[in-house]
Amino acid sequence: MKKLSFFLITFSSFVVAQSKKIEQSIATLYETSLTDGASYDWLDHLSNQIGGRLSGSLNAERAVQWGKEELDQMGLDRVYLQEVMVPKWVRGTFEYANIETSPGNTINVPICALGGSIATPAAGIRAGVVEVQSIDELKSLGREVIQGKIVFFNRPMNPTNIRTFEAYSDAVDQRTQGAAEASKYGAVAAVVRSMSLRLDDFPHTGATQYKGIPLSQRIPASAISTNGAELLSSMLKLNPDLRFFLKQNCKNYPDVLSHNVIGEIKGTEKPEEIIVVGGHLDSWDLGDGSHDDGAGIVQSMEVLRLFKKLNIKPKRTLRVVLFMNEENGLRGGEKYAAEAKRKGESHYFALESDSGGFTPRGFSFDCSNEQFQNLLPLFSYFEPYPVKEFTQGGSGADIGPLKDGKVILAGLRPDSQRYFDYHHAANDTFDAINKRELELGAAAMAALVFLIDQR
Amino acid sequence: MKKLSFFLITFSSFVVAQSKKIEQSIATLYETSLTDGASYDWLDHLSNQIGGRLSGSLNAERAVQWGKEELDQMGLDRVYLQEVMVPKWVRGTFEYANIETSPGNTINVPICALGGSIATPAAGIRAGVVEVQSIDELKSLGREVIQGKIVFFNRPMNPTNIRTFEAYSDAVDQRTQGAAEASKYGAVAAVVRSMSLRLDDFPHTGATQYKGIPLSQRIPASAISTNGAELLSSMLKLNPDLRFFLKQNCKNYPDVLSHNVIGEIKGTEKPEEIIVVGGHLDSWDLGDGSHDDGAGIVQSMEVLRLFKKLNIKPKRTLRVVLFMNEENGLRGGEKYAAEAKRKGESHYFALESDSGGFTPRGFSFDCSNEQFQNLLPLFSYFEPYPVKEFTQGGSGADIGPLKDGKVILAGLRPDSQRYFDYHHAANDTFDAINKRELELGAAAMAALVFLIDQR
Repeated sequence: MKKLSFFLITFSSFVVAQSKKIEQSIATLYETSLTDGASYDWLDHLSNQIGGRLSGSLNAERAVQWGKEELDQMGLDRVYLQEVMVPKWVRGTFEYANIETSPGNTINVPICALGGSIATPAAGIRAGVVEVQSIDELKSLGREVIQGKIVFFNRPMNPTNIRTFEAYSDAVDQRTQGAAEASKYGAVAAVVRSMSLRLDDFPHTGATQYKGIPLSQRIPASAISTNGAELLSSMLKLNPDLRFFLKQNCKNYPDVLSHNVIGEIKGTEKPEEIIVVGGHLDSWDLGDGSHDDGAGIVQSMEVLRLFKKLNIKPKRTLRVVLFMNEENGLRGGEKYAAEAKRKGESHYFALESDSGGFTPRGFSFDCSNEQFQNLLPLFSYFEPYPVKEFTQGGSGADIGPLKDGKVILAGLRPDSQRYFDYHHAANDTFDAINKRELELGAAAMAALVFLIDQR
Repeated sequence: MKKLSFFLITFSSFVVAQSKKIEQSIATLYETSLTDGASYDWLDHLSNQIGGRLSGSLNAERAVQWGKEELDQMGLDRVYLQEVMVPKWVRGTFEYANIETSPGNTINVPICALGGSIATPAAGIRAGVVEVQSIDELKSLGREVIQGKIVFFNRPMNPTNIRTFEAYSDAVDQRTQGAAEASKYGAVAAVVRSMSLRLDDFPHTGATQYKGIPLSQRIPASAISTNGAELLSSMLKLNPDLRFFLKQNCKNYPDVLSHNVIGEIKGTEKPEEIIVVGGHLDSWDLGDGSHDDGAGIVQSMEVLRLFKKLNIKPKRTLRVVLFMNEENGLRGGEKYAAEAKRKGESHYFALESDSGGFTPRGFSFDCSNEQFQNLLPLFSYFEPYPVKEFTQGGSGADIGPLKDGKVILAGLRPDSQRYFDYHHAANDTFDAINKRELELGAAAMAALVFLIDQR
């Protein structure tokens, strides 16, 4: 009995000591990220020296080279590029729209072509406008009403949904499917209210898809700023016969070669089990992609840099992946997963940051209930920081293709209230990044990777 | 037995129904704040049409008039001004500093006079510099080292403290006491590193105190931007004999009359019990005080507006107080509490918003353990929003004087990572406010008041 007591006391002291040690390691990760971090300076370079990096562009290739060079300098065990063919869409030299309120009287409104859209004819398109709130409404109106018209999709993101990513998901079908659906009823163009919760003058781009629509039947698609959408809608109430003028010369090219950028630290105990952290290296072209997803790129790189700097040797192989082409193709994520499968690699955990560089509030996990239950004890380590929202749900687009029923997928969940003010717009620039918030996100990611690797 | 079961089932149905009703009321408060709120437009006016409103200034009086007029239009049961004498300190027409690295070679650095500081002589002060990290270090150096010098207090806010208000509290003695302490050892001026976690070029003002120091022995006090502090510190390492030049013509005047602005909705069941929501109407003069504390003012006003608009009749008397002179005197808060005591008013709950207009993360309560335990069941109503941090601790400066061992005091706790980027500096302006974040704060406050009044 005495022996058992002794054992229990010793064991519980051991557990307390272990727990203290883990707390200390996490505190050191946070301190280093906040006082000696690289993420902010990296993002300064990526945003201000490289800038917007749309898949297939010269800038995207400059970003690939920069990413590889930075990883090369970190003394990782392996750094390499993974070839991936990506779509190449170019915005062109102009995009322009106005509302013709009466013959000869026009008001300019801010628009931008949606990614993947075709151009208008060189002289532009001038046509009447049918405003709809949804694709269902479009269908109910039918060809009789839609034929020859510009369809204006104007359902706002729901401002009462505190979960802004849900509000986005609930509205974005207008952008991704609107043009394709409208073309089926004879529309000549689609203009979509920007996916933003703010009233301002920035049009927000993003991918539109022509799935199943033959080239000859495709119609141009643009986003209009939220202020522009409000104006157009109120003008339509005054004059339902007003006409809208749209002109853009964007263009699709054949796929081109690009790369995922990969770096890794070999695991000391289970090197065959892989932990991935990543974000996407490509961005839209209007801003410099600081929040989407420059932040996720530099935070992911920072996780490995912190491990190296603090001499933390992961048990499993820790890999950073700078995915190419999340925005308009997801080719990088798909290629990475396909290659992993082909090579028979075993992924243990994958973590993506692609929700902006704001104060981290939690993580979302895409895994089984049992896996999630097993993770619960880890979350209390985040109490001091304070990161408090651990939920089951989505993870990240780029790591999604890794899903195989075994790997645990997760996404960093920063505060989301400001994200759609910047998302895919010209104001997604470095000045919208707060250094501490960015660094706290990197630290939280490093802490989670550390905790999960410890198990 | 059957009767008891029937009672229990009926009772538990009643409890569930009540709980659903409360959830619905809170949802409506949030929805109204987000889609039909007044807080953002109010703040636009206060910040952009009135601007900085230092106690005793014309702008502070314009803010008082504006506050009263807005409350008058809300159809409250009573709106009135409460007289309060406030300090009047004026920044003057110039403030200027440079580092003289060698005779004739100077580098300008951004400084601003600290609130309450005296002026320099008209020709300015040129003197050698002693850098210290703390008042303790100042004392240990003593008169021999300090006499005739400018004391440079350069201890940064601790960047590794995630609780930025703690980091502020731990550093701010340099600003509030530094000049007074340095004068005791013969210093000719005090220059204090700005209370900010960011490296930039904004000097941050704030009150300094000469408690117990006779007028003739007071020395001028300035804040230097964090970049300026870093530069001065590194220059001192190269040349410990460099000289610093400081010139400012700020001035203290006799106290002047100002006002707290008060509006109330009379309680339906316990009108003699008072619930207060408030913030402070005065601000520093460098920016327009949008975060400090324009946000708290409009959020507090919004609580009463939401109750009126949604026809929620509080059981207790609900009072909004726009406190005057938090920044350099706290005279409004003290006067309000003194008047409450004199009139024998009974305060049940007081809530302050004075931590910026950022995403609300929780509330801090200054109350007994027993009171806090009784509040716990209320907090789960905030789960959907998600407001998750309910702690015991401080509340707000203006409501602090109400503390009497009975009243529950609380403070809104928004995300604090960006607050000290703007606090007391020229960049605390309306463009730094996010509409949704501001509105979410107002909604959270209204929800808490509603819940506590329901009890």
